[in-house]
Amino acid sequence: MRLLLLSNSTNYGGTFLGHAHDTIHEFLGMDVGEILFVPYAAVRFSFDAMSAKAAEVFGALGYGMKSIHSVPNAPAAVEEAQAIAVAGGNTFQLLARLHQEQLLDPIRERVREGVPYIGWSAGSNVACPTIRTTNDMPITEPPSFDALGLVPFQINPHFTDGRIPNHGGETRSERLLEFVAANPGMPVIGLREGSILQVEDDRVVLLGDAPAVLFKSGQESQDIEPGQVEV
Amino acid sequence: MRLLLLSNSTNYGGTFLGHAHDTIHEFLGMDVGEILFVPYAAVRFSFDAMSAKAAEVFGALGYGMKSIHSVPNAPAAVEEAQAIAVAGGNTFQLLARLHQEQLLDPIRERVREGVPYIGWSAGSNVACPTIRTTNDMPITEPPSFDALGLVPFQINPHFTDGRIPNHGGETRSERLLEFVAANPGMPVIGLREGSILQVEDDRVVLLGDAPAVLFKSGQESQDIEPGQVEV
Repeated sequence: MRLLLLSNSTNYGGTFLGHAHDTIHEFLGMDVGEILFVPYAAVRFSFDAMSAKAAEVFGALGYGMKSIHSVPNAPAAVEEAQAIAVAGGNTFQLLARLHQEQLLDPIRERVREGVPYIGWSAGSNVACPTIRTTNDMPITEPPSFDALGLVPFQINPHFTDGRIPNHGGETRSERLLEFVAANPGMPVIGLREGSILQVEDDRVVLLGDAPAVLFKSGQESQDIEPGQVEV
Repeated sequence: MRLLLLSNSTNYGGTFLGHAHDTIHEFLGMDVGEILFVPYAAVRFSFDAMSAKAAEVFGALGYGMKSIHSVPNAPAAVEEAQAIAVAGGNTFQLLARLHQEQLLDPIRERVREGVPYIGWSAGSNVACPTIRTTNDMPITEPPSFDALGLVPFQINPHFTDGRIPNHGGETRSERLLEFVAANPGMPVIGLREGSILQVEDDRVVLLGDAPAVLFKSGQESQDIEPGQVEV
């Protein structure tokens, strides 16, 4: 199983997937010709606009792209996919649509068979057992929070120690400590913007310059340095 | 129907409910002797600790307090309540427990009969038709996002224009614009910290110094000044 799970598409002040070009190219290699793209997390812009934006980046790297919203038979497209890329946006919207189109089982199956999976932000959330560690607003109610379960841990994308100045709301760490308190046994990796998790079967490697943060129930959170990760 | 819906319990640098003492006292008046308290949103501290903290504040205002987690028969306690206060914490946790204890219908019924309802943060979220405009992480999966529906609009508590410095994630306004795009016909009031909505039947009044922000699908967001609100 091969996964490339990005915290985010766009670093602060950066360009769309700009920080990940080389990593994506290396990950997909020369064997993949066309990528199946999943734009379902888009809310305020069209699936066409989102897939065009992604096609530009992947095209420049030498890959063709087909968006799942534009094919007549989505499950068949998954069946034939050489690689799958799932974009960010709203995680609830994305998961609701994956349930609605009955795509969770086919995608899970194909990725477990070895089809490379790239996700960013919401696309990384849905690679986890559930979407319970998303930062997104629950604007849409999916039939279940259960997601692809491609990794045995949760990711919190866009992880940050920052807080809004003069604001009383919870910090991200407080929210994740609540998660592990309510879900003992399920660890969370807080993945800072710019960071990427590369998964090759049971091997998990943190790419990027910044440490990630590991949350487990009953333990203090701890930094994880870039390199191989033990969850 | 009488509701006092607070954005938050604690202003930045302030004390627990400190900004709302006078308003709460005026709202409850002299007829209420004891308040039924709902601490179910607590995650990382006990219901006992949360209710003790609230009992101190309400006690100082001259009101007794009984916490619903400590009574033998919760629906019966709702039936006899002179007033109901629902505390903040995690909205998903709160709503899941309200569903589990089958308290949504009894509370809705009593409040519609005139029993005063005070909520802050998550307690204000659950007064709305659904919890789709909470800021909280979905750490627990409730059977449904449907909530008390005491008001015909959504509230976003802890509303802020601020953002985390050098961070790429969505702003609050972006999230709420996504909500109204995905849920046309349902307006949202973004309620800044320190602000309170007082509802007396169909009359809605914004209390506090700051404007709130009204979001409606297909429209620009607009400021609402303190005073009577037309949603």
